Amino acid sequence: MNNYGGCTGQLDLKSKFTVTYKHVTEELWENYHFVGNTGRVTVFTTRPYSEAFTTQRLDHTDFPLYTAQKADYEPLLYCGFCNLFDRYLQRLLPDAPEQLLKSRPAHKPPLQIWLLFRTRGAADAAKEHINEAIAEKLDIQNFSSSNTFRVTDLGCSVGPNTILAMQNIVDAVELKYQSQGHNTPEFQVFFNDHASNDFNTLFTSLPPHRKYYAAAVPGSFYSRLFPNASLHFVFSSYALQCLSQVPKEVLDKSSPAWNKGRIHYSNASDKVVQSYAAQYAKDMECFLNARAQEVVYGGFIVIIIPGRPNGLPHSQAIANMVGEILGSCLLDMAKKGTISEEKVDTFNLPTYFASPQEVEAIVERNGCFRLERMEILPQAIPSGNFSRGKVTSSQIRAGMEGMFKEHFGEEIIDELFDALHKKLDESSIFESGNGSTLFALLNRIATV
Amino acid sequence: MNNYGGCTGQLDLKSKFTVTYKHVTEELWENYHFVGNTGRVTVFTTRPYSEAFTTQRLDHTDFPLYTAQKADYEPLLYCGFCNLFDRYLQRLLPDAPEQLLKSRPAHKPPLQIWLLFRTRGAADAAKEHINEAIAEKLDIQNFSSSNTFRVTDLGCSVGPNTILAMQNIVDAVELKYQSQGHNTPEFQVFFNDHASNDFNTLFTSLPPHRKYYAAAVPGSFYSRLFPNASLHFVFSSYALQCLSQVPKEVLDKSSPAWNKGRIHYSNASDKVVQSYAAQYAKDMECFLNARAQEVVYGGFIVIIIPGRPNGLPHSQAIANMVGEILGSCLLDMAKKGTISEEKVDTFNLPTYFASPQEVEAIVERNGCFRLERMEILPQAIPSGNFSRGKVTSSQIRAGMEGMFKEHFGEEIIDELFDALHKKLDESSIFESGNGSTLFALLNRIATV
Repeated sequence: MNNYGGCTGQLDLKSKFTVTYKHVTEELWENYHFVGNTGRVTVFTTRPYSEAFTTQRLDHTDFPLYTAQKADYEPLLYCGFCNLFDRYLQRLLPDAPEQLLKSRPAHKPPLQIWLLFRTRGAADAAKEHINEAIAEKLDIQNFSSSNTFRVTDLGCSVGPNTILAMQNIVDAVELKYQSQGHNTPEFQVFFNDHASNDFNTLFTSLPPHRKYYAAAVPGSFYSRLFPNASLHFVFSSYALQCLSQVPKEVLDKSSPAWNKGRIHYSNASDKVVQSYAAQYAKDMECFLNARAQEVVYGGFIVIIIPGRPNGLPHSQAIANMVGEILGSCLLDMAKKGTISEEKVDTFNLPTYFASPQEVEAIVERNGCFRLERMEILPQAIPSGNFSRGKVTSSQIRAGMEGMFKEHFGEEIIDELFDALHKKLDESSIFESGNGSTLFALLNRIATV
Repeated sequence: MNNYGGCTGQLDLKSKFTVTYKHVTEELWENYHFVGNTGRVTVFTTRPYSEAFTTQRLDHTDFPLYTAQKADYEPLLYCGFCNLFDRYLQRLLPDAPEQLLKSRPAHKPPLQIWLLFRTRGAADAAKEHINEAIAEKLDIQNFSSSNTFRVTDLGCSVGPNTILAMQNIVDAVELKYQSQGHNTPEFQVFFNDHASNDFNTLFTSLPPHRKYYAAAVPGSFYSRLFPNASLHFVFSSYALQCLSQVPKEVLDKSSPAWNKGRIHYSNASDKVVQSYAAQYAKDMECFLNARAQEVVYGGFIVIIIPGRPNGLPHSQAIANMVGEILGSCLLDMAKKGTISEEKVDTFNLPTYFASPQEVEAIVERNGCFRLERMEILPQAIPSGNFSRGKVTSSQIRAGMEGMFKEHFGEEIIDELFDALHKKLDESSIFESGNGSTLFALLNRIATV
């Protein structure tokens, strides 16, 4: 396969810079996972290092907080272009940024430097479930007519996590074929996200020696994206909690479900909760209908979403608690006159956190898939000698900043996320809230 | 299908701006071709309109030159985001740029405005050949085992031309299926180019109501890009004249093929010409070997390349003449001391313009394809009341600027292309040179 974006000719120069630089392909992809409990990388920036470094230190997160080198929350600097990474050790490498900039001519622009946090938790557990499911339940006899095994990550975003997940699936399927004495098929991996996703960066981040043919597919996974019966394994991590849209009724003043003074359904009226739940069910139905046509009989869908245990009130799920606090920050700003109340009333978060029972009912109603497995994954809540409010606020900012900017204007963003950071630190949600991640494995069954 | 990037809700606003705005999908994609004789669009910029407008007027081309409204060379402004286009009529719409900027909030950023030139010529002829080949020679019985028809554009670049070409192939194949009483298959179209191609822009430019599932595949077409036997129709236009690399010998001082004082093989020693021809043959062999594995039996490859008629000396092909003049501009600058002679000696253009005989021999040697058709397409050399040197210089700058910047530095670019423009205008190459476009149709045959 091609050596995309590699600049291996410059390794000597880099090895002078730091002896701890290592090839990502040799160690990073293999052994580490990223960003806390989400299984999804926090990409703070893909801007040039100099800018990124300044911006991050000022706006997004405090580097020194992380330099304590907690074993389960270790910061790394990763260059998406060179496929090289390094530990972030500010004291040991005080001039690292300058050195990297000096070596910039060696990188073709843009220089991509990401700050990652590696940890164990949900991603590890999900990986184990997937490997087990492939080993025990994937019936490759179903696929004998095709010499290509097609995998997709729906809502892949940008960064190492999608690449890691795809690599893991390919490896596990390959092992299965070999263990059953079959020839290994060729693999084709489709990275899907909205057309606005930064596919250019994703492409330059692909590992040079991958075992699959890579492709990108733009568009919403709530509609058709692939030809009939062309997929063998669908993966979607931390994407299906995003609704296709905010339910219309909650923005409609004349509706009993109008969500005045709130930005989410937690602690809202039953009508609001019902509107959100109905939107979720409708979106999931679209998702499953589209996939039912695209996935071959015997093919798998793995869904990983932030959710809540059966019976847990919405208001006790951490994700909802954070939304509630974010809403209260906006209301505070409205009281101060920084933004208008009208602006708050016309904004709602397009996310929903489902329970296993809800997912089960939707899958059953659809009828094209058997729910092989449903698990609640262990949730690694950030802990250590740093502000959890700051980390959570930074992560939410990284993922949702655009949405807030568009609705409220750029000028309020710093104030909003500073306020969120402080309120989160004052709250007890990390102790009292429930942060469950749901893992669901679906098997496409032949329907009569 | 999804309505990618459409902002149809803003049509009223736009229709106030100009009554000549039209839906691309309704007329533009159907009826027009772009950029002179190449079948490939000249994308001057994808920057915001304000920047683009200024930059273009200053650096790249003189808008007024084109406002004469020659029937066969008409300038258009195209918004890749709205999928709308308009004639560029400076006098009729003097405030067009400002108006569009005012309406910018209606566009999600980035606003994509391209200046295109539409014309008839090679692209039309190629389209006719393709339609004829599909109607008469594509044996769809070969594909009965698949309900998906897979097409790719290798070296697609960004802009309307790839989308137009793919749409045409899909339409023609659909017609063929219908005319033979078969069910229409689903179509999947893979847009391929180097990982550095602007796929993000390409994705936001896809027509909202397309008849195919779209995907992008990053990487060099001189190596494998797709699974075995997965493609039915391969298309490549104005891409295969680019070599995978400059032949090593021509940069090697100790080699008899060292190309001192020149940047291309035209008028160079036989050894240099042989090195280029050998690199071309080797690259084409890699291309055909990779495609032989990827294309199903009975599948087609259409190759469109700038070339030269059999027997024509390299030095009489327009493309080579332009390279020769470009080299002389660089030598002039070396004499003046603007750049070093060493810099010129270490630079060579990685392009080769083949004859039908050469292509035929390479296809025959490969043995996996039957050459169904080889044509020389009519070449529409720009003519009219404007500077052809300026147009040609601008087109070359648009395509190759990056390569020159990287080797010689940004500061010489304006001077270089100004000099090229003037030398081209003083030359008689548009009268005396030969600018042939080759069209080749290959059919994947079963090999014993």
